[in-house]
Amino acid sequence: MADDAYEGRAGVGRVEAFSDGVVAIIITIMVLELHPPVSERMDQLWSLWPIFLAYALSYAYVAIYWVNHHRMFANATRVTNDLLWSNMLLLFTLSLVPFSTSYLGEHHFSAGATILYLVTMLLPSIAYAWVQWTIRRTGRQDEHALAYHRQTLRKGAVSSFLYLLGIPLTLVSPWLGIACAALVALLWFLPASPVDRLFRR
Amino acid sequence: MADDAYEGRAGVGRVEAFSDGVVAIIITIMVLELHPPVSERMDQLWSLWPIFLAYALSYAYVAIYWVNHHRMFANATRVTNDLLWSNMLLLFTLSLVPFSTSYLGEHHFSAGATILYLVTMLLPSIAYAWVQWTIRRTGRQDEHALAYHRQTLRKGAVSSFLYLLGIPLTLVSPWLGIACAALVALLWFLPASPVDRLFRR
Amino acid sequence: MADDAYEGRAGVGRVEAFSDGVVAIIITIMVLELHPPVSERMDQLWSLWPIFLAYALSYAYVAIYWVNHHRMFANATRVTNDLLWSNMLLLFTLSLVPFSTSYLGEHHFSAGATILYLVTMLLPSIAYAWVQWTIRRTGRQDEHALAYHRQTLRKGAVSSFLYLLGIPLTLVSPWLGIACAALVALLWFLPASPVDRLFRR
Amino acid sequence: MADDAYEGRAGVGRVEAFSDGVVAIIITIMVLELHPPVSERMDQLWSLWPIFLAYALSYAYVAIYWVNHHRMFANATRVTNDLLWSNMLLLFTLSLVPFSTSYLGEHHFSAGATILYLVTMLLPSIAYAWVQWTIRRTGRQDEHALAYHRQTLRKGAVSSFLYLLGIPLTLVSPWLGIACAALVALLWFLPASPVDRLFRR
Repeated sequence: MADDAYEGRAGVGRVEAFSDGVVAIIITIMVLELHPPVSERMDQLWSLWPIFLAYALSYAYVAIYWVNHHRMFANATRVTNDLLWSNMLLLFTLSLVPFSTSYLGEHHFSAGATILYLVTMLLPSIAYAWVQWTIRRTGRQDEHALAYHRQTLRKGAVSSFLYLLGIPLTLVSPWLGIACAALVALLWFLPASPVDRLFRR
Repeated sequence: MADDAYEGRAGVGRVEAFSDGVVAIIITIMVLELHPPVSERMDQLWSLWPIFLAYALSYAYVAIYWVNHHRMFANATRVTNDLLWSNMLLLFTLSLVPFSTSYLGEHHFSAGATILYLVTMLLPSIAYAWVQWTIRRTGRQDEHALAYHRQTLRKGAVSSFLYLLGIPLTLVSPWLGIACAALVALLWFLPASPVDRLFRR
Repeated sequence: MADDAYEGRAGVGRVEAFSDGVVAIIITIMVLELHPPVSERMDQLWSLWPIFLAYALSYAYVAIYWVNHHRMFANATRVTNDLLWSNMLLLFTLSLVPFSTSYLGEHHFSAGATILYLVTMLLPSIAYAWVQWTIRRTGRQDEHALAYHRQTLRKGAVSSFLYLLGIPLTLVSPWLGIACAALVALLWFLPASPVDRLFRR
Repeated sequence: MADDAYEGRAGVGRVEAFSDGVVAIIITIMVLELHPPVSERMDQLWSLWPIFLAYALSYAYVAIYWVNHHRMFANATRVTNDLLWSNMLLLFTLSLVPFSTSYLGEHHFSAGATILYLVTMLLPSIAYAWVQWTIRRTGRQDEHALAYHRQTLRKGAVSSFLYLLGIPLTLVSPWLGIACAALVALLWFLPASPVDRLFRR
């Protein structure tokens, strides 16, 4: 719907800036879960490892979203209603990450906490796909942009599938579920890797 | 007062950026109310639903403000004293949302908490009208801008009325008050909807 | 020192953006002090008034800083070492406001808390003067800019004096100290007021 | 790898903006550790000095990083994968500063807390070097930029060494370790100082 769109790159810039603000806060408030232990004994500090590990994992996870959001929005050319609201939904799902991260850390990677974590990872991957479909429809239409969308939408679908797969695997062992999440991180971490050539076809 | 205005679009940009920062923080710190339960039993997790529902409602509510703030400021052309201070008042009233949200969640949508919530929703709707009147007076004056202001100021007045109406209705049942708030959200959620044609006349 | 300066308006823009981020966080985290009371009785809610009043006062106070920072930086043309560090000191002193605000609210505007609050207000007013002297020396040198600096530096000196004056007055009654702080707010609230003509000469 | 880079200064701008957001939050949330004491007696307030001192030290420390990040990124001309991820790692290591700061403050500059603090200072200095090597490789290549990199990379190496040196010295006395950290701060605080001429050669 043409009349739905009302702004060019300047409007896109403000959506990016707002998203950056929200993601910056999400990624940073997670560290507040790392409460310094009252006692000074070293083993007290070591006992924080699950909370630290959960923080590091979620940091990498949200950082990957930011890096990809940054690249994807370089293809957006105007602000539509769909873009605003799909992006708001993406930020909402990401805002749940600190909760499930601290749940994961405090319950030491138990099966229940891991499943909750995988669900919290699945939700933004679906919202992200909606944002990307919107930009693909309303943004740059050159061959380079379309190839980018083709490749990353596939990669996104594989990621969502891996999170889903992680849920039953967690019932076998939570570490299998965490391995699924870590595999997704690996998949996105190296954008110029042979993995990408696989999705590019 | 002409001598009151001192800057063009660059100044407006900084006001937008500051507002984005404040709104990004408001929308994100609300999630900090979602404390992970100590026990790992699933019913403990379920018992968080009022806090989660209150968070989701307020997220939608603040997101609607941001989306409309974004559109409205596209019509601003210079920074006046009125614009700065009405915008600061708007951000102040929005900053009370996390408080009434957590009050609503912790008191399980009781009558008292719902009334406080509706009042906290009423205040930004009044401050927003002040900002918009300022931009209408000092910003773009073309037909498109004036039509935008006419339509959204009407919609805003209806919203304020619905919040007011929700207060006595809450005394009948808190869910009637929440329904009023949800109706306002619906009204703003779909800017290209038939609802808008109604206000556009 | 000419070789000290290394950037034009683009560099200034990033300093503004960083300052906006810090101020946005300072102004927003203060609301976190408003903890919803556990009991639902209305008198519990009323008992929050000193915390709410302290929040509203500090919000106005930090908002005034932002508005003036915004105007002052419109006169900066390049980033010097002095500008970066005086601005960092200003942000540091402002970052203490949430602490003294919550101290003021929790100790119900006692003499000790009011003095701490006035000191926390005095510090940024001194740091602000340093930033302004730097911009006056290195920024725009036209008549309009110089008149702006002359007027606001005087107003700043009067503000600092009022905070200082408030300290002994607090020993008589804390409300006299708060009145001094409120008077400063009033002085800055209306930049196009007769008050300004007074400082403009 | 040329095909790895995909954006010019606009992309760099968004990386800067995101970094500014994260650093602004890191620098500001540290002040939340300054909880106002319940009792109003002045000695209660004085007993906060280690937390305040740790906050001021870390504020200076993160501020130095921001100032240098700001200068370094003025030399970046395009966004590469290396730049994005080295910068994300830098922000991650900086996000640990609030934790070790509050640990340092609550454990009154004990040996264990000081060592943890020095390690938390060492990590960003290594990540920062990676970011700088990336910008040196992919950014501006003129003589001015290369001289800047040569000088600051040396200064960075000396800083990392001082943090390392501080660790064994802390076992003698924690204040020797803090002195090492303070020496690094001094080294960076005055960029136009004779110290710089030393590194410039």
